[in-house]
This record gives sequence, C-alpha cells and structure tokens, in this order.
Amino acid sequence: MTSVTVLGLGPMGHALAAAFAADHPTTVWNRTPGKADGLDAAVAATAAEAITASPLVVVCVLDYAVVRSVLDADALRGRTLVNLTGGSPGRAREMAAWAAGHGVAYLDGLIMGAPADIGGPDATLLFSGPGDVYRAHRRTLAALGGNATHVGEDPGRAAGFDASMLDAFWTSMIGVVHAFRFAAAEGIAPAEVAGHMKVSTGLLPDLIDVVAEHLTADDYPGEESTMLSAAASMDHVLDAIRAHGLDNGVLSAARAAVQEAIDAGHGSDGFTRLAAL
Amino acid sequence: MTSVTVLGLGPMGHALAAAFAADHPTTVWNRTPGKADGLDAAVAATAAEAITASPLVVVCVLDYAVVRSVLDADALRGRTLVNLTGGSPGRAREMAAWAAGHGVAYLDGLIMGAPADIGGPDATLLFSGPGDVYRAHRRTLAALGGNATHVGEDPGRAAGFDASMLDAFWTSMIGVVHAFRFAAAEGIAPAEVAGHMKVSTGLLPDLIDVVAEHLTADDYPGEESTMLSAAASMDHVLDAIRAHGLDNGVLSAARAAVQEAIDAGHGSDGFTRLAAL
Repeated sequence: MTSVTVLGLGPMGHALAAAFAADHPTTVWNRTPGKADGLDAAVAATAAEAITASPLVVVCVLDYAVVRSVLDADALRGRTLVNLTGGSPGRAREMAAWAAGHGVAYLDGLIMGAPADIGGPDATLLFSGPGDVYRAHRRTLAALGGNATHVGEDPGRAAGFDASMLDAFWTSMIGVVHAFRFAAAEGIAPAEVAGHMKVSTGLLPDLIDVVAEHLTADDYPGEESTMLSAAASMDHVLDAIRAHGLDNGVLSAARAAVQEAIDAGHGSDGFTRLAAL
Repeated sequence: MTSVTVLGLGPMGHALAAAFAADHPTTVWNRTPGKADGLDAAVAATAAEAITASPLVVVCVLDYAVVRSVLDADALRGRTLVNLTGGSPGRAREMAAWAAGHGVAYLDGLIMGAPADIGGPDATLLFSGPGDVYRAHRRTLAALGGNATHVGEDPGRAAGFDASMLDAFWTSMIGVVHAFRFAAAEGIAPAEVAGHMKVSTGLLPDLIDVVAEHLTADDYPGEESTMLSAAASMDHVLDAIRAHGLDNGVLSAARAAVQEAIDAGHGSDGFTRLAAL
C-alpha cells in the first residue's frame, strides 16, 4: 500500500487526508499546527519531513504562490507531486515545468465537489499530466472519490476544464444575485421570485447541450433565439435595471458582446454563435 | 362565452389566438396579412375593426413601440386590453397610464414558455394590474395555460418578475457561451466540457434557494463561499481568459462588483451578500 503525504489541512486538504488515511499510511503537514485533529495520520514537523515520508505527495493549499512557498525541491526529487490547488492552466503548466526541472513527476488535478463529498461517489476529480504517472498512482488517487478521470497529457488541461466550468458558474451566480437585487428594487420579495428564477435557470443544462451541438456542427440556427431577439430582450432588462440606478456592468458587457456579433452580420443567427466568436 | 380579439400573429400571437379560438369566438389582426392560416378565427381588415369585435383585446407584438402604433384609443374605450408584449416595468406602467387616460381597463402580462406550450400545463402566465379586471377575465385568460397568476395591482409587476428572471437567464447564458469559447481556446471540445458544465450550472436552482434564504434572514454566512474566495476563484478564471486574449468584459464586471463588496468590508461574508448590496 503506497504511503501518501498531504500538505495543507484546510477543509479540503483535511478531507483528502482523511480519505487517504482510511487505506494508506498517511503523513500530513500544515503551515499552522493543530489542524490534524481527527486524522489517523502521522503529523510532520516540517514540509520537508512530510515530503520525504512518502513517494506520493499531494498538495492542496490556497493558491499556487503558497504551493511554491511550501514545496522543498530537494526533498521532492524522485517523488510524485499531485497538485490539487486551484489555479489557471498557465500556472499549472509553469508548475509542471518547475517540477520537471527538479526531477519531480507531476500531476495537476481539479476537484469538483465540496470537502464532504471527498471519498464518496459524488466527488469528481480530473487529472492532467503524463499518462504513465497517472496510471502509476491511479489506484491510490481513487481513494479520493468515485469519479476520477485523466483528461490529457498537457498538465494545464484539468485547470482548463476548471476555468471553463467556473467561467459559466461565476457568471451565472453574478446573474442570480443581481436578479434578486433587481427584484428587491421592484418590491418583489426573494421567496416570490426564487421559484420562477429556478425555472429559467433550470433550462441551462438542456441549453448547454444545444450550444455543444451547434458548435460541433458549426451551425447556429436561430429558430429558438436569434442574436437580435436576445439583444431586444437584454435591452428590456437593462432599461429596467437602469430605471433603478442599479449597477449594470455585467449585463451591459454581455449586451456589448451581442452587439459585436450583430455588427459582424450575425443578427439572424442563433444566440449560440457567440460561443464560436 | 366572451369573445376575444388578438392583435399580432407572430409565433406567440398565433399560439395565443389558437388557444382562445378553441373555446371562444375569436377575431384576429396582423399588420401584414396572411398570418391567420390554420386559425378558426375571424380575420379583421384593420386593427380598429378587430378591437371593436370583442370586449377583451389581447396584444402580443414585437415591443411596446409597436403596441402603441397598432392600438386605436377610440376603438378601445370601454374595453379591456391585455398586453402580453415583453417590456420593462416602466414601459408597462406608462402603458397602463395611457390606457387609464383613454378609459381602457388594462392588464400587463408575462408569458413564460414557448409558443408550443401555450394552452398546455407548462405555460406560466403572470398578470399585473387591477385585481377586479383580472378576476373579470380570469376564466377566459385561463385558456392560455395551466399556470396563470395575478402578481399584483401595480401594472409593472409582471414585467418586474420578467426582468428579474431574464437578468439571471441572459447573464447565465453569456457565461455558458463564453465558457465554451474559452474551452475551445484550451483545445477542449464542446462535448468534453458540456457534461461538466451541466453539473456546475445544475447547482444553480439549489443555490437560488440559498440566496433567497440568506436575503430573507438578512444574514450571509460565508461557510460555503466567502466574497474573498469567490474573488480568488474569479481571478484564476480571468488569468486563464486573458492568457488567450479573449474578451473578458462580463467576468471583469462581475469581479469588480465583488471587489466593491470586499472594499466595503464584506470580504468574509458569504458571496450571497452581493444580492443585498
């Protein structure tokens, strides 16, 4: 049974360590002590001591700057580093280059799910980096959750999936909180509008399939919604937002992207063409 | 059985007329002729002729400017006008004032659903305006769909619900198309990322309930996601988008709204507080 080291014991790192410790000799370290409560793991005094305890080192901290500050290149040499810290594809590729320069095998990973999901069937983990490194540790990494997938040799690829999902997610969430803010300005209570908002955003999964189909076919029919009708609908909403003097930066930027498509001659195309522009 | 007039025979107006005509003597008019095919309805030569044929006149055209251009105030006097044209709350209130000034009873309405849903259980219609006017025509209007609700005396209220839902919807859709655009720049095919994007946007209905609960309690705990962690996550995505030189206006505007909340001292609050700022 491969022994595993986990660096970083925030809520997610703690959950990762607990999942490994159920089946593997596990060593943990955190910059501030006292975070290992409840873990059946050895607690190392330094990051270097923790790293040298295992051939497989998992790091999950706030961001890539912290990753670099806690890693000891000499201690890592000859081991495998799996970085589950969130970051951009470019940072992941830089990190992979750093690891290669120090004789460290490197996988970059993305966790979809909350700490409570780790180890269970609902946790999805995407890994990118050399396929042979992934295959060598796949069984150990499977302790983290039911859905683990290797998405490519390019170490930035998992972060690419992450950024794409988060782009859609955060933009949507900003739309949701703004919609509640606007409803309040109209004297509409949260509970009154929530149900209707759930219906309209509940259309998104099906519409995501439609966008993917249109992109794959490179054909953007406008039967359901043209760029021009989207623009008219957005203008109604912007009128209403402006009438209350509310911030409209997000929807105005969205409207500008639609206008650019219209000006480029795509007014009668489906709204979905924006995904290809 | 009340007779009904429908002005405007675009796809939605046509569906409305078909639903009324199943049970009511129905008269229709469209600015350009030849749109009444398949309707069991009398076709009027002019808008005024159509209006004087029924006590209840339903109008569904491109926008409020077209509504005003097709309505004949003298013909309408003493009748009820139900405006199902999309617009902002302010335009609905202006329209109500115009109707009141011409002795016309007025309801403003919002249709949630596609033309194919009209008359069936999936069509939701919200009406606003005087409750007595709604009650007088409720049974006739029920022909349009299974879920009809009077949401208030303020004639702008249905449009307020509409704008709020569309704010969340269009912002989300811009996030979705942008996410696909970014994925393509990362060499990730639409079909590869679509499933993951459906999982992340599939969280929205539950999160909408969370936002509504926090707003109702006026308490924004940050256990799940603080303003600061949202900012860090958005920064990762923005880094990744900028690395490809892609337009980032929408997410940058979202990030600016988060920064404003942080600068106002809400960094450790839940992201949901943005709905109250």
